[in-house]
Amino acid sequence: MADYRFISFDGIDGGGKSTQIAWLAEWLTEQGHEVLSVRDPGSTKLGEAVREILLHRQEIPLASRAEMLLYMACRAQMVEEVIRPALQAGKIVLSDRFLLANVVYQGCGGGLDVEELWRVGEVATGGLLPDLTIVLDLPVDVALSRVGEKTDRLESRGVAYFQKVRDGFLRELPRGGKATKVVSATGSPEEVKHAIREAFL
Amino acid sequence: MADYRFISFDGIDGGGKSTQIAWLAEWLTEQGHEVLSVRDPGSTKLGEAVREILLHRQEIPLASRAEMLLYMACRAQMVEEVIRPALQAGKIVLSDRFLLANVVYQGCGGGLDVEELWRVGEVATGGLLPDLTIVLDLPVDVALSRVGEKTDRLESRGVAYFQKVRDGFLRELPRGGKATKVVSATGSPEEVKHAIREAFL
Repeated sequence: MADYRFISFDGIDGGGKSTQIAWLAEWLTEQGHEVLSVRDPGSTKLGEAVREILLHRQEIPLASRAEMLLYMACRAQMVEEVIRPALQAGKIVLSDRFLLANVVYQGCGGGLDVEELWRVGEVATGGLLPDLTIVLDLPVDVALSRVGEKTDRLESRGVAYFQKVRDGFLRELPRGGKATKVVSATGSPEEVKHAIREAFL
Repeated sequence: MADYRFISFDGIDGGGKSTQIAWLAEWLTEQGHEVLSVRDPGSTKLGEAVREILLHRQEIPLASRAEMLLYMACRAQMVEEVIRPALQAGKIVLSDRFLLANVVYQGCGGGLDVEELWRVGEVATGGLLPDLTIVLDLPVDVALSRVGEKTDRLESRGVAYFQKVRDGFLRELPRGGKATKVVSATGSPEEVKHAIREAFL
């Protein structure tokens, strides 16, 4: 079985990351691994404090470069405080999003320079890349029909934005992890689960 | 007279930056310029929010990379929200510290990679460097005797740390601004004032 220790899941919203991460964590645990699931940004006190700032963006003006650097700061903290110690303790770490998402949402989607984002990301993570990054991919119209009702904010950005994000995930994925895999998320959750497990066999 | 529009002051604490910036602002205003004084990090709502995080570092663990990226985020916001608009409106901007301080304190003093910090800084500022950066320089023992009583935290870091910071300012200064100048801050405030004005004549 492939020995991936640090695995990230990414892709446009609506792909079912949370469900798949929970299932994979369960499966890996059954096989005797200690598994830690984290969410990027988040999973630290700094992540929570920055989340508060992002939630108050109507009172706190936030340029796109500043927002990107806040995400990078949270990721730097999470790598140092949570991910590296867990890996050193022999755990498998599953991360809901990682650097790739930052590059795609703020670069491909938001218009910041993609090369700059990879460079800043390398500094933020201290060069730590996931051993495996899985993108759960699906067409934009399917994604929007799945998540559309949940959030008006998403819809308001327009289909063109999400198309750039989806394309961005596919284009930038090769730099997002040491090994990478695109899994179609159009099928049933069970089908997606099996496609993900193949990466570990 | 030299036409500097964006001027930063930097150097180890105890050099009297605040006084000199106030005097220079007054002098430039008398000559008919509109002058805006800012403080990096700070001078924005994001800067205040991040300052709150830094003040609570006993409850919020903060790795040095994460701290550095928070400063970069504040600087990115300040450039976009305050400095660029002021320059575009024809004002002269005086900044109490800028990117150079981040490189020196977290790199030369704190042990992060100096080249990485310059690279991240270029992204954070969108490539905006001060037209003139003035370092108010003084020997570490003089600096500590001036500021020592004000803050125990400073003393606790030890003389070797401040020596690295002072040396760092002198070594990295050439990359800190388009034009740069070291002014000895060992003399009286009046003497320092005159040495600073020479840069403008």
